[in-house]
Amino acid sequence: NSSFNQKNHPHRRHNPLLDEWILVSPQRANRPWQGQTEKVTEEKLPAHDPNCYLCSGNVRVNGDKNPDYKGVFVFENDFGSLMKDNVEFSDEKSDFFTLKPERGINRVICFSENHSLTLPEMEVGDIKKVVDVWQQQYEELGAEDYIDHVQIFENKGSVMGCSNPHPHGQIWAQSSIPSTVLRTQENLKNYFEKNGTSLLEDYVKRELDANERIILENEDFVAVVPFWAIWPYETMIVSKRKAENILQFSDSEKFSLASIIKDLTTKYDNLFEISFPYSSGIHQSPTDGKEHTEWHFHMHFYPPLLRNAEVKKFMVGYEMLAEPQRDITPEQSAEILKNLPVVHYKEALN
Amino acid sequence: NSSFNQKNHPHRRHNPLLDEWILVSPQRANRPWQGQTEKVTEEKLPAHDPNCYLCSGNVRVNGDKNPDYKGVFVFENDFGSLMKDNVEFSDEKSDFFTLKPERGINRVICFSENHSLTLPEMEVGDIKKVVDVWQQQYEELGAEDYIDHVQIFENKGSVMGCSNPHPHGQIWAQSSIPSTVLRTQENLKNYFEKNGTSLLEDYVKRELDANERIILENEDFVAVVPFWAIWPYETMIVSKRKAENILQFSDSEKFSLASIIKDLTTKYDNLFEISFPYSSGIHQSPTDGKEHTEWHFHMHFYPPLLRNAEVKKFMVGYEMLAEPQRDITPEQSAEILKNLPVVHYKEALN
Ligand SMILES: O=P(O)(O)O[C@H]1O[C@H](CO)[C@@H](O)[C@H](O)[C@H]1O
Ligand SMILES: O=P(O)(O)O[C@H]1O[C@H](CO)[C@@H](O)[C@H](O)[C@H]1O
Repeated sequence: NSSFNQKNHPHRRHNPLLDEWILVSPQRANRPWQGQTEKVTEEKLPAHDPNCYLCSGNVRVNGDKNPDYKGVFVFENDFGSLMKDNVEFSDEKSDFFTLKPERGINRVICFSENHSLTLPEMEVGDIKKVVDVWQQQYEELGAEDYIDHVQIFENKGSVMGCSNPHPHGQIWAQSSIPSTVLRTQENLKNYFEKNGTSLLEDYVKRELDANERIILENEDFVAVVPFWAIWPYETMIVSKRKAENILQFSDSEKFSLASIIKDLTTKYDNLFEISFPYSSGIHQSPTDGKEHTEWHFHMHFYPPLLRNAEVKKFMVGYEMLAEPQRDITPEQSAEILKNLPVVHYKEALN
Repeated sequence: NSSFNQKNHPHRRHNPLLDEWILVSPQRANRPWQGQTEKVTEEKLPAHDPNCYLCSGNVRVNGDKNPDYKGVFVFENDFGSLMKDNVEFSDEKSDFFTLKPERGINRVICFSENHSLTLPEMEVGDIKKVVDVWQQQYEELGAEDYIDHVQIFENKGSVMGCSNPHPHGQIWAQSSIPSTVLRTQENLKNYFEKNGTSLLEDYVKRELDANERIILENEDFVAVVPFWAIWPYETMIVSKRKAENILQFSDSEKFSLASIIKDLTTKYDNLFEISFPYSSGIHQSPTDGKEHTEWHFHMHFYPPLLRNAEVKKFMVGYEMLAEPQRDITPEQSAEILKNLPVVHYKEALN
């Protein structure tokens, strides 16, 4: 009877943000892989692509012409998942067929006019301008009476369903609080009511003490591989102080956020020396006009890759039916990410 | 101000099994797609492949030799996510770093010795033998004192992380009830305590009355696109009577189950005339030795494809951070699946 060792023995970890468990199988990290691999194509992109519907001055599918923008450019998604229309609806109560109309606004944010860039390759000052626009958009959209939640996110890389390499993110603003955000909110709230402090503020303190999973730290933010991370290289950027949302950040805090985003995404690119795919997004207080002292701004990064540029982690079968499962431990991933340089490999080549 | 129409207007639907919502955007079904596509390779496979580690008589990676089996063959996974070992563990209480050792057993089930087959191409009688083995395995594994849950599932197709086309599924049996199963159980239990009836029994009755989302029906089972389905062609097989688990099925019920699995997976293959990828798995009562009158046997099918054999639905960005989103409505998918023949397209060619 050997004694438990989290580096060698299967175990489950608890995620306090979602109040659910994940299965960790450290002994499985070296199993052979003969399955599907991803194509890695690293063509050099032009700064302006005449066929890109996000580039300055180009015409989009619906006939609209993009302005000759420089820097950040926001427009409404031509194929949005939501509509602004206020439709008449009579709620027929039903046990099993419960539905409600949902209103909202979908926007696209181009991060730069330069088609060939990505966040890690942009100047910090230019990423700061993206953060400024996130702030403005959260304020503007959240101010609409019927918008209770503003989801800011980025899908990067074709493996993440992104159909255009032009650097861009999205905003889906809507009249309800989405399921995962609501669950997070409930757990933040329970903790805040019980302890009078922010769950994530306390967590960050414990992570800084432990110093096992922290990847980056600056004056205002940390980047950490959460103890309960499910994706092999999942990370979370958290503000050190409890800010409920992006509106509460000063200019210098926004600069700190831009800077940690640049360093984290640079480490990601350096991991396999490719443009590293991920979905990222901000969790913060909803815009439903209620008090939200429980909220604490954070940004999730969910990258799909596992062993190298070609092999991703498949969240299928067991994961879809039962619960998330990972092989490499969060501590091992953190160690790898921590040791990577914050100078981009392409720059290092020069 | 037009009035709400679920065929044209964005809306959210409630999933009573998980008590969460999904976003449906019917107006978005026709957006253009320029993103990543899947390779479709439909090579004709041999009945026996000397390089396949699942074929009869072949040697596996760990040196074990498969017997010269015919029909169903079960063995322990050489790279399991769980281990049987009972390790010593002293629980150090911690707010944020909560973990517990997890014991268990991972098995692989080959559905047939014939490397070239898949479930829809097998005889009903041979699928019935797979169902028999699921029943035996659930019984045998569940009888272990330390096994509280037995997850039976199949990953089919390389896009679902399946690395070997030999027809096979898996069983992960473990000492805890996994997160998603536990949530389902809580919702089944709440309903059962409130109404004294099974949530899924009542739901199936309502679906049979509505007759809008039912794909297949036989004496003992229905196959339905759930009102709250998230994957474009997601379906669920449910027993008409409340059976808590597979042990309660008679021989003729097992035959009915095999038969509806054959017909459903045949329709799937016929949809795009390819071997249709999916993850499927059974949800049923845990083997924790407690009474589970709330449980009702059902089997989920989660297929990733959206428009055709090459374009899948990406559950990324918004879906990972906020909530699942779909374009084509469950009613549209059901209509398409319902109208497909139950004769396999390959057989129809003969
Ligand atoms: O066990 P397999 O088939 O090698 O692996 C596959 O199924 C598992 C269970 O759904 C997943 O955890 C893996 O990510 C997937 O690649
Ligand atoms: O809106 P896009 O970039 O066309 O689409 C992508 O992101 C969306 C939001 O995460 C997803 O719903 C789509 O499945 C994905 O392909």
